[in-house]
Amino acid sequence: MKKYWSRLAAGLVPYVPGEQPKDKKYIKLNTNENPYGPSPKVLEAVRQATDDMLRLYPDPSCSALIDAAAESYGVGRDQIFAGNGSDEVLAFAFMAFFDPGRRIIFPNITYSFYPVYALLFNLDYVTTPLDSEFNIPTEGLMKGSGGIVLANPNAPTGKAMPLSAIRGILDASPDKVVIVDEAYIDYGGESAIGLINKYPNLLVIHTFSKSRALAGMRIGLAFGDSGLIQALENVKNSFNSYTLDRLAIAAGIAALQDPEYYRGTLQRVLATREKFVNDLRERDFYVTDSSANFVFVSHKTIRAEELFKRLRQAGILVRYFRDPLIDNYLRISIGKDEEMKALVEEIDRIRGRA
Amino acid sequence: MKKYWSRLAAGLVPYVPGEQPKDKKYIKLNTNENPYGPSPKVLEAVRQATDDMLRLYPDPSCSALIDAAAESYGVGRDQIFAGNGSDEVLAFAFMAFFDPGRRIIFPNITYSFYPVYALLFNLDYVTTPLDSEFNIPTEGLMKGSGGIVLANPNAPTGKAMPLSAIRGILDASPDKVVIVDEAYIDYGGESAIGLINKYPNLLVIHTFSKSRALAGMRIGLAFGDSGLIQALENVKNSFNSYTLDRLAIAAGIAALQDPEYYRGTLQRVLATREKFVNDLRERDFYVTDSSANFVFVSHKTIRAEELFKRLRQAGILVRYFRDPLIDNYLRISIGKDEEMKALVEEIDRIRGRA
Repeated sequence: MKKYWSRLAAGLVPYVPGEQPKDKKYIKLNTNENPYGPSPKVLEAVRQATDDMLRLYPDPSCSALIDAAAESYGVGRDQIFAGNGSDEVLAFAFMAFFDPGRRIIFPNITYSFYPVYALLFNLDYVTTPLDSEFNIPTEGLMKGSGGIVLANPNAPTGKAMPLSAIRGILDASPDKVVIVDEAYIDYGGESAIGLINKYPNLLVIHTFSKSRALAGMRIGLAFGDSGLIQALENVKNSFNSYTLDRLAIAAGIAALQDPEYYRGTLQRVLATREKFVNDLRERDFYVTDSSANFVFVSHKTIRAEELFKRLRQAGILVRYFRDPLIDNYLRISIGKDEEMKALVEEIDRIRGRA
Repeated sequence: MKKYWSRLAAGLVPYVPGEQPKDKKYIKLNTNENPYGPSPKVLEAVRQATDDMLRLYPDPSCSALIDAAAESYGVGRDQIFAGNGSDEVLAFAFMAFFDPGRRIIFPNITYSFYPVYALLFNLDYVTTPLDSEFNIPTEGLMKGSGGIVLANPNAPTGKAMPLSAIRGILDASPDKVVIVDEAYIDYGGESAIGLINKYPNLLVIHTFSKSRALAGMRIGLAFGDSGLIQALENVKNSFNSYTLDRLAIAAGIAALQDPEYYRGTLQRVLATREKFVNDLRERDFYVTDSSANFVFVSHKTIRAEELFKRLRQAGILVRYFRDPLIDNYLRISIGKDEEMKALVEEIDRIRGRA
């Protein structure tokens, strides 16, 4: 089977995304998608762009999307890079800024794609432990020589790090690139984008898969000094000239141009999260303070794996990580009110049986 | 500027796609796109899929697209891989099958992305020279130890290699992977897909950007033994779980299900090519026998660069490569009849002036 594999391919341990089962209809709270769809203006823009022009290659530099992002975020055009979801942007960033032999560092509990990239690109890494309440001690992050990767808010804990702490890391690390992965920033926490003019080694990564409800369209952005952006462009243009298709570009632009719609759906998710956290705490759950569109929870008496399995049987998908550090925790995405209500009712049934 | 770049990023020489100028409207014959749009059923399928579901991640395994391709090509589901255009599929294949230190080989005149991938993934390569009529001598291809990459029909020459020659290469190279890039196969030549059951080291790559008129949607497929496909999956899942968005998947499926429409547009391109080749040969052009949707041409007296510049001034874009091996040649995509007529008229004007 592996006869023709490269040494690289044979040594990989791929990332495992949350399951997308097709056997029946589930209440899907396992991949942190937005319960509300994209802006109607996004759907309209995509339909408008669905014409004979699909025969032509997209703009490889995504100029119109970059223009819209520059306007929306108030940064320069040359400070923005666009990629096929934040995962692709992260992959390019690992290639563009980290060197084999120089250890990069990230927390021991964080987005589980980071070690996968390190293996793929032959990069050494160390992890730094979170404290008992899942905070990230900043001193720990400063030990790597090759670069720092940080999710803020962190996943799957949902906890945000204050901007002052990020500034502290940047001040202490002028010689290496610091990647701040802000996939969930719109749900809480303070964005570091405002710091890119001051710190030429800061790369901030955003996605359109969460608050902008476009997980199905694969759009990610990076913000940073133009020197960093140019390195990302070089890597991308050595890999695949056009990673965003014409409809993804159209969707991204329209999403950036309808902030009002997205403010509304964001507020609904935040209100649902607040109620859901209260419901869980009343039911003997430990729940971290979430700044994301998910919560990270552990029950006093029922094991996480047991809960995960019972919920799955009842048609409710949540995320369980088979990682010894967090194997009594579940990550639960915030859905619509009625979905969270169904989940709480199922939890009550399980507690009654337990 | 390059302070924070990895050694890798600093050493790259990115691929340069054909220009996509926005200063005015051009007759665009420089990037081998299809002059006819995608099937109306494709546009309808994409519009149908443009709904609230875009909030959800796409199927990471692209099952429905793989199913449709298996049906359309008559191969097994486990013999197909789907990626973001054939460029991404090629990038993954270079990672999955080639090892640093073992030289891969490809022709000295071929798709100019191959050496870019080699540099990106730190792979050694050698090139083998074409003969004076741009044929690929197969013995030359057998000298590399690490793998063979071949475009058939070749680009930018447009010349096809007979299947018997490919079989010869495979018979002589049982220990290394042979990649046959069939981006242009629908315009001529014989596909090697029928050989994948016999040769477990053969990977055939297709794109939807040419005959299927979906360059704007970024869809590529690879066909090969399930062992090879699994390696591609491992690399992809270590890079980006979802590289095809929901609308690209929908477009790809609908395109595979409307072969009749595409047979029609293919015939029109082939008829236009035949007439255009005759027109050029009557005007003192050397034109290779093209099995692609472009022709590769050289004029007896007017230098290619001169022609390129004059055509551009007249609003007609063709492709000129600044490569000493082919710097008196132009690659001209086959457009609609009226576009080729305008080009021939402009050539007549240039010849009159010349």
